[in-house]
Amino acid sequence: MSLPNHFELLATCGTARAGRLTTPHGVVQTPAFMPVGTAGAMKSVHWRDVRDGGADIVLGNTYHLMLRPGAERIAALGGLQRFTGWGGPMLTDSGGFQVMSLSDLRKVGEQAVTFRSHIDGTKVELSPERSIEVQRLLGSDIAMQMDECVRLPAERADIERAMQLSLRWGERSKRAFETAPEGYMLFGIAQGGDDPELRRASARGIVDTGFHGYAIGGLAVGEPQAVMLAMIEEVAPFLPTDRPRYLMGVGTPDDLLEAVKRGIDMFDCVMPTRNGRHGVAFTRFGQVNLRNARHADDPRPLDEASDWPATSDVARAYLHHLVKSGEALGAMLLSEINIAYYQRLMRDMREAISRGTFSDFYEQTRTDWAQGDIPSR
Amino acid sequence: MSLPNHFELLATCGTARAGRLTTPHGVVQTPAFMPVGTAGAMKSVHWRDVRDGGADIVLGNTYHLMLRPGAERIAALGGLQRFTGWGGPMLTDSGGFQVMSLSDLRKVGEQAVTFRSHIDGTKVELSPERSIEVQRLLGSDIAMQMDECVRLPAERADIERAMQLSLRWGERSKRAFETAPEGYMLFGIAQGGDDPELRRASARGIVDTGFHGYAIGGLAVGEPQAVMLAMIEEVAPFLPTDRPRYLMGVGTPDDLLEAVKRGIDMFDCVMPTRNGRHGVAFTRFGQVNLRNARHADDPRPLDEASDWPATSDVARAYLHHLVKSGEALGAMLLSEINIAYYQRLMRDMREAISRGTFSDFYEQTRTDWAQGDIPSR
Repeated sequence: MSLPNHFELLATCGTARAGRLTTPHGVVQTPAFMPVGTAGAMKSVHWRDVRDGGADIVLGNTYHLMLRPGAERIAALGGLQRFTGWGGPMLTDSGGFQVMSLSDLRKVGEQAVTFRSHIDGTKVELSPERSIEVQRLLGSDIAMQMDECVRLPAERADIERAMQLSLRWGERSKRAFETAPEGYMLFGIAQGGDDPELRRASARGIVDTGFHGYAIGGLAVGEPQAVMLAMIEEVAPFLPTDRPRYLMGVGTPDDLLEAVKRGIDMFDCVMPTRNGRHGVAFTRFGQVNLRNARHADDPRPLDEASDWPATSDVARAYLHHLVKSGEALGAMLLSEINIAYYQRLMRDMREAISRGTFSDFYEQTRTDWAQGDIPSR
Repeated sequence: MSLPNHFELLATCGTARAGRLTTPHGVVQTPAFMPVGTAGAMKSVHWRDVRDGGADIVLGNTYHLMLRPGAERIAALGGLQRFTGWGGPMLTDSGGFQVMSLSDLRKVGEQAVTFRSHIDGTKVELSPERSIEVQRLLGSDIAMQMDECVRLPAERADIERAMQLSLRWGERSKRAFETAPEGYMLFGIAQGGDDPELRRASARGIVDTGFHGYAIGGLAVGEPQAVMLAMIEEVAPFLPTDRPRYLMGVGTPDDLLEAVKRGIDMFDCVMPTRNGRHGVAFTRFGQVNLRNARHADDPRPLDEASDWPATSDVARAYLHHLVKSGEALGAMLLSEINIAYYQRLMRDMREAISRGTFSDFYEQTRTDWAQGDIPSR
């Protein structure tokens, strides 16, 4: 059964796409990057700066939120958008990925995954049906089907088993989502590791099931970028062009540029905030490590041409001092600087696609990155 | 020799005073509370929120800044106001207090204090002359004389020795400050522990030396509030009414109310930010511990009548969740909430003094605090 479509494809340039996704909590311009607010908060960044920085939509992690503060509690408080004060569109993952990476004593069965909470050791069961129930309690604008993600490299048999299980879980997720109110969306996820044939089979499978949108999961889990891009190219031809395409857990600015070029519409990654906490800024001229002593006496900002105040106004010497001193303000400034950089990259890609100049933009961006940071004084 | 006066007494109400202090980086309305940005940053708060929260002036710690990033470096970068981006008035302490509380192997001599840096173990000498030199390199609008502060309870002989040493260091600090440009200020510090006679002697001594303003130091170091207030009452009559009066390192909102009532014009304390990092909010109805489970399901804000958005809009349940989860955003929100509360208390006291209604305000504020937090639902 075909589900309603809330995505509008506005422009293409080569295989790159610009569009608009309408959710119950607002409109998302695509290609879109979703900053990750794991436990209902963006680490070291105020929500107003996430919004002012240009994000239309953010991601919350079902695993964390179901354990603390609990999905039923968030539902009683009006959903995740109201609970956090973010107010805008939110996508939640299924919880499956974090169960694999964070919890103890997990056991994957056909019916469900059982695990112990990394917070208090409580035994928890997560089935595709419960994952959808939790995501609906959270009030997610976009829910994700439950899947099993295999770290690479892995044996083909393991990848295939997880991929087939994910297809069955996708069907169960869809049935569980049937009673969701109009406007809310469920995305299916293509798995298949680094195996082209399994990727194609998975893509066909989820499209047969039919979702509001389609994700490519199980990438950026240890494989080279070339493998990731090859897998996108395997999967993309099987996805309906009128539905949004989301590459999960990706990535660096370079990954975003390459994946948008190959027709991806949505991304999420902790990298802007995590690298910010570790003293690294993303800029027009590549990554800049503020811990480096070359910045200690440099009164210049990271990029005076940026339209984001913390990027264009705050002295490198001050950022260096904050990072070296372990001051919270260092993580706060660099995290918002990085979120703003990612959002500007997405905005510029959207504009280039709309104008039909994406390949020029692609070349110029690569040239700027290759040039590296401004010379020391 | 009398120093120029940059303070204007605008109104009095009983012994409470409202005034205006003009510094090279801007005007300070008094009574004023100075949030503490120890190492050139307000912990977990953006400078724009310090300003928007209502602070006219902030405090920086000479000890921390001279060790890292270094006073000469900050001078080369345009001074502390420009280096940090704060831009407004800054007061710096002399460094003496932190030498006593943070460094290892310190040795107090007549000429100077020698100590080892708590950061890298480097041996450092701090004399009254070097303290002034450092504070001038930092570009402080208001520098403090170097003094020796004794923790209470202490022997009278120790208190007297430190008080006399502080008077001699005050004279040397003043000589070292003679070449400072017009507009920059140096405050003397009354010591004398909890001994009324020594307090009076110290106050007479610093007024004889003559400073731009006068501080009361060595309080809030372990003594009961009643002792602190009694010492203010001993010292105040000896201070010239046309000069600003600064009570160092104080304190709770209750301390501020009582000290303003007794004629104090300026305060500083880490309490708003430190308590914020520990999950405690200051509100109109007293302190609220957000870690308490009673807030877990409470959608109400801390104080819906507040004009500070994070106080009037953010759900207690969300703050509780952030604190319990150790999310940086919890410390960020509660620190700005507390700074804003302190600034609103100061603003309201200034207005009450100007209107001649300070005792009404004093009673109402005490009644509100005594009422305690709003009941659970």
